[in-house]
Amino acid sequence: MKVSILGAGAMGSALTIPLADNGNEILLWGTEYDVDILKKIEKGEEHPRIGVKLPEVQILYPKELKKALDADIIVLAVSTEGVMNVFNRIKNEVSDSILITIAKGLIEEEDHVYTIPEAIWKENVKMRHKLVAITGPSIAKEVARRAPTRVVFSSKNLKTAKKAMKAFKTKYYGIEITDDIIGAELTSALKNVYSIAISWIRGYEERFEMDLSNAKGVLATMAINEIAIFVEDAGGRKETAYGLSGFGDLIATFRGGRNGMLGELLGKGYTIDEALKELEMRGVGVIEGYVNGRRAYALLKQLEMRGKASEDDFPLLKAIYSVLYEGKKVEDVLMNLLIEGG
Amino acid sequence: MKVSILGAGAMGSALTIPLADNGNEILLWGTEYDVDILKKIEKGEEHPRIGVKLPEVQILYPKELKKALDADIIVLAVSTEGVMNVFNRIKNEVSDSILITIAKGLIEEEDHVYTIPEAIWKENVKMRHKLVAITGPSIAKEVARRAPTRVVFSSKNLKTAKKAMKAFKTKYYGIEITDDIIGAELTSALKNVYSIAISWIRGYEERFEMDLSNAKGVLATMAINEIAIFVEDAGGRKETAYGLSGFGDLIATFRGGRNGMLGELLGKGYTIDEALKELEMRGVGVIEGYVNGRRAYALLKQLEMRGKASEDDFPLLKAIYSVLYEGKKVEDVLMNLLIEGG
Repeated sequence: MKVSILGAGAMGSALTIPLADNGNEILLWGTEYDVDILKKIEKGEEHPRIGVKLPEVQILYPKELKKALDADIIVLAVSTEGVMNVFNRIKNEVSDSILITIAKGLIEEEDHVYTIPEAIWKENVKMRHKLVAITGPSIAKEVARRAPTRVVFSSKNLKTAKKAMKAFKTKYYGIEITDDIIGAELTSALKNVYSIAISWIRGYEERFEMDLSNAKGVLATMAINEIAIFVEDAGGRKETAYGLSGFGDLIATFRGGRNGMLGELLGKGYTIDEALKELEMRGVGVIEGYVNGRRAYALLKQLEMRGKASEDDFPLLKAIYSVLYEGKKVEDVLMNLLIEGG
Repeated sequence: MKVSILGAGAMGSALTIPLADNGNEILLWGTEYDVDILKKIEKGEEHPRIGVKLPEVQILYPKELKKALDADIIVLAVSTEGVMNVFNRIKNEVSDSILITIAKGLIEEEDHVYTIPEAIWKENVKMRHKLVAITGPSIAKEVARRAPTRVVFSSKNLKTAKKAMKAFKTKYYGIEITDDIIGAELTSALKNVYSIAISWIRGYEERFEMDLSNAKGVLATMAINEIAIFVEDAGGRKETAYGLSGFGDLIATFRGGRNGMLGELLGKGYTIDEALKELEMRGVGVIEGYVNGRRAYALLKQLEMRGKASEDDFPLLKAIYSVLYEGKKVEDVLMNLLIEGG
């Protein structure tokens, strides 16, 4: 098949490996931020973020977006912040293609919070049966080295998901199919938020010089179960959160990446402003869990207003929100969460 | 209350800390294997396995078992291998006490496999409403240092569980109550078995010198979901496995202790015999997950015969059994599990 990848970041680029192994024709388009990477790839150098050389792909520079659209499959491989921007540029020209989304975040438009699929369908309802989301354990550096994993392709239309699967599945890249695309996407976005809290414990361990693995187990349990309830309240299925999209991804990325760094500083006693400043100084970019923390809480309030959820079911999410956005410190909330569950 | 702890190992001894903080009168009885530890505690030295001094407790030597039985609460704190041995010595004298079990294993008697509660009730049916099991994240060294955690007290009689809770709950030792004692106990026993498989990945990482976090996420997901199905098939509730007893304990003890050591060697390519020999040479004692692997598989077969389970739902457990007991190597089974889920 002909597959276009829009965005030359780590994950989009990593996906060229299984796609090429399956003999697909691959076009890799980059945004203005990707130009240096595109040049390196054209020269046959390693991709700077994943440390491997890419297979044979056709490089497309920012102005050549149109050339990427005549494809069987189009992968939206930019970050959450850029997804709707790119989609809106192409939305009327892609109804014949399968569209794949890989970002793990929530979209905010005009004071309303959506999952990425919902935001996309709002712009072009024809994509309803043409959209596939990829979730589950898929650290880009590992996929790029053909390290084995199994991910989830979710779509309202299982035929679409199966067709996409044919392009991607290899001996090292396994794929499960589900129709719970909302559940899968919500799970992925929420995991990043809850990762911050789980990492509070690492900060506490350093601060108080003691092992707190039991506490880590308690918070991780609260996290996965709140995600499951959230998903169910939003119309998805709990099993999605308990599966590869939630639990699997959580285990694979347990240290939490940038979300983990933020959580650790907060656990050490930093205020949110001090922590964000520290990370900025270290050159750490956008922290998805921080941005999505506010959106997740707003989405919870939306569900509450429709009678579909109760914030009483989300003590950990409320605690995270209070630390990220209401000036609370981890020590104000942690012991009550651990001992009383609230 | 008056609380007797039967067995002076790490966990039983760690529980003296919250019990003493609540002002309970504590008797600590040791088996023949515990005599050296009892002497150290009497001298006011640190407990060799948890590295802390115990609070004020009355020490009872092996021959003084009877003195421990006139108590409000009796904690069976010996390992799975010793539990029924000790219980059978006291079974007719404890019907007025609350009995607490903390071991995490399966019992085999006359070719039939039971959870510990079922084995106990078979010997004394009056204990049905007097038995409480403790499960969930509770690494002994952490509890002994008052590191925060929340565990699960499960009992067929919630009043009994609540009464036991009063003796143990502190500001750092939180407690949830459930009636799913079978689910909790099965979950704990199975977690140790599946820990072996999750640790195969660490062995593979060393062997092939690559990060395999995605694969770890896949296996851990298969593990927790098979445990949930097993529990439901056996009459318990899936949520018990997804809660502190399953997920929480798994996260807290993710490296797997001795089960992890065994799994790692198997992942490196050792046969089961080579791995067991290596661990014996290193002075590692009984490996609960190894022993319980066979019992868990036998229990699955029991459930199948009663039409309550199908081994098709347990590809990972079958793979674990084949490696532990049927001479298979990890490389024979791993890729199929990861990529195909079977």
